[in-house]
Amino acid sequence: MRVGVLGGGQLGRMLALAGPPLGIEVRCLERTADAPAGAVAALTVGDPADAAVLAEFAADVDVLTYEIEGLPEEALAEVAEETPLRPSLRSLEVASDRWLEKALLAGLGIPVPRTLRVGDRDDLDDAVAALGPCVLKCRRGGYDGRGQAVVRALSDSAGLAAAAALLDAPGGLVAEELLAFDTEVSVLGARAVDGSMAVWPLVQNSHRQGVLRESRVPASLPADLEPQAAEYLRSLLTELDHVGVLALELFVMPGQHGQRLLANEMAPRVHNSGHWTMEGAETGQFEQHLRAITGLPLGSTALRGPTVMVNLLGTLPEAAAVLAVPGAHLHLYGKQPRPGRKLGHVTVTAPDEVTLGQRLDLLAAVLA
Amino acid sequence: MRVGVLGGGQLGRMLALAGPPLGIEVRCLERTADAPAGAVAALTVGDPADAAVLAEFAADVDVLTYEIEGLPEEALAEVAEETPLRPSLRSLEVASDRWLEKALLAGLGIPVPRTLRVGDRDDLDDAVAALGPCVLKCRRGGYDGRGQAVVRALSDSAGLAAAAALLDAPGGLVAEELLAFDTEVSVLGARAVDGSMAVWPLVQNSHRQGVLRESRVPASLPADLEPQAAEYLRSLLTELDHVGVLALELFVMPGQHGQRLLANEMAPRVHNSGHWTMEGAETGQFEQHLRAITGLPLGSTALRGPTVMVNLLGTLPEAAAVLAVPGAHLHLYGKQPRPGRKLGHVTVTAPDEVTLGQRLDLLAAVLA
Repeated sequence: MRVGVLGGGQLGRMLALAGPPLGIEVRCLERTADAPAGAVAALTVGDPADAAVLAEFAADVDVLTYEIEGLPEEALAEVAEETPLRPSLRSLEVASDRWLEKALLAGLGIPVPRTLRVGDRDDLDDAVAALGPCVLKCRRGGYDGRGQAVVRALSDSAGLAAAAALLDAPGGLVAEELLAFDTEVSVLGARAVDGSMAVWPLVQNSHRQGVLRESRVPASLPADLEPQAAEYLRSLLTELDHVGVLALELFVMPGQHGQRLLANEMAPRVHNSGHWTMEGAETGQFEQHLRAITGLPLGSTALRGPTVMVNLLGTLPEAAAVLAVPGAHLHLYGKQPRPGRKLGHVTVTAPDEVTLGQRLDLLAAVLA
Repeated sequence: MRVGVLGGGQLGRMLALAGPPLGIEVRCLERTADAPAGAVAALTVGDPADAAVLAEFAADVDVLTYEIEGLPEEALAEVAEETPLRPSLRSLEVASDRWLEKALLAGLGIPVPRTLRVGDRDDLDDAVAALGPCVLKCRRGGYDGRGQAVVRALSDSAGLAAAAALLDAPGGLVAEELLAFDTEVSVLGARAVDGSMAVWPLVQNSHRQGVLRESRVPASLPADLEPQAAEYLRSLLTELDHVGVLALELFVMPGQHGQRLLANEMAPRVHNSGHWTMEGAETGQFEQHLRAITGLPLGSTALRGPTVMVNLLGTLPEAAAVLAVPGAHLHLYGKQPRPGRKLGHVTVTAPDEVTLGQRLDLLAAVLA
């Protein structure tokens, strides 16, 4: 069984490492020869946005998947007629359009922030007038906080100018009410070809400047939020007829009658906030995604013990110092350091929360 | 950091998969291009026993290690002057000579079966007369029960003939008393460049026709045997100035004052009875070996939960059926089926022994 991955970044690299034990060969298609996946998988150097390149790559594999978004939908639709594309184009389309995404979520009864479409400067003013403090986001193509601007009020001329500068983005913008959330979480799960589903425990995430810094499981939240999030994810997986891993990011909002969830965005793929599963769950997300898309049964998503994943951003600590922390598992992506770049992650496992806290203190000293 | 592995079988393959997350590139040297490691690592096709091939391979890596035994000691000694060989030649020499091995173990105060050297037919008769029922083993080169014959008594002409047929083996034979052991165990651990050591929990093994079938952790044995085995391993690691993973197989003997351990043989490398560590321990043996030989600190060897590893020998079950067993982790080696051949293994993890038993019953039905 040969799986072709569109994209060859760290997600492709970790998918590639999960393949051989299952008898699955993973190949990646990426623009540059020094892509992270190149060190561990057969790498085809080429632009996935080029229809001819895509068709040639697809012809040589049994199933196609993707680790990036923003792919050429028309060309993908064509190759998908010959080679199964999992998850399907619909998941990709919905996830790459913030307006479609919000509409789908709301249609499934999943609460979302108040959101308005913004096409021009008048829409922008109207949105700020209607929503009050809000975040303007490019409807398509933004990620990790890029392509976003916060506007506090109609009198916030700097915010309005920053938002207006985004107005010529293809597809325009969406304006979302700015939320005073308590914390951020994500729920990840997978759906198999036969429709069966498996959902991992809820993950509590900390971001800084829009980039994930840390994921923690189990989340310290009221017990009812966990089945609620899983239910949202299951309805989304089912509605999309999704095959593979899907991540849904949510805000945890304060409320008079207890905390509640508000869906933020989805990723139709393995996701940074699922890296903890490699050591923290019975089945890791990379193995699970491969199982799902190749028609194998899904593995157990049970938690093995309290786990924290910390991203290594911009600079790399000394490997020896990280590995001297008990329970620390290092995952390097083979990338050159650059400010803010995701270079790797460390997952810390422990038999209990107290021990985990001690280990995290040791890690923090190494990363300081 | 580039690690060169002599041999490219399943052990080389699993070492290669453990490298990239640590920033380590693994290369293997193996006679055939279709070796299991070839699918996941840069594979140099050549005979490790050829001094010129060995020297060229060694020149291109930062540290050399091995996943096979029976290597050319003289040629290795030469390359080791330029490129660090870990574990060193001494570990390899001792492990590949049953007489040296037993002598070293006994010298460290580690109990071993009564053993005699057998060079010719007269020695053979003398050994059987002295030991009674015994196993004749080639002093060098045997593994997985090959190159062995059992002699019950001087009147056992079939046994004597089988043993006599082995007499021209290079180095001759050793005769070991035949033991009515209760069970077999192994203890694995690693020693780092700085001399620090980490030992995994004792593993209980079941063999059939000399080949490992199943490893189980924790072993169901009196509590005092575990620290005893670890102590034996530590003294052996220290005496050999060993760097890397070392496995010591032992017999558990019945006794009037409780069970006791008798050392059988060692392997100066990652070992089949350590495969369970990949999911069952905080650090797996392949990662640990790479950490040890590249000068990184060792990881925790703590048990994560009860674990059983089952070898897949000769034929492969349907992957989907194996993966439908909760907690089952499949590891295929990319080898063509052949009677008795090690094609892969399945590790089953569970939160507790009762659940593990249920899962093993499901797996047994799949493998039946």
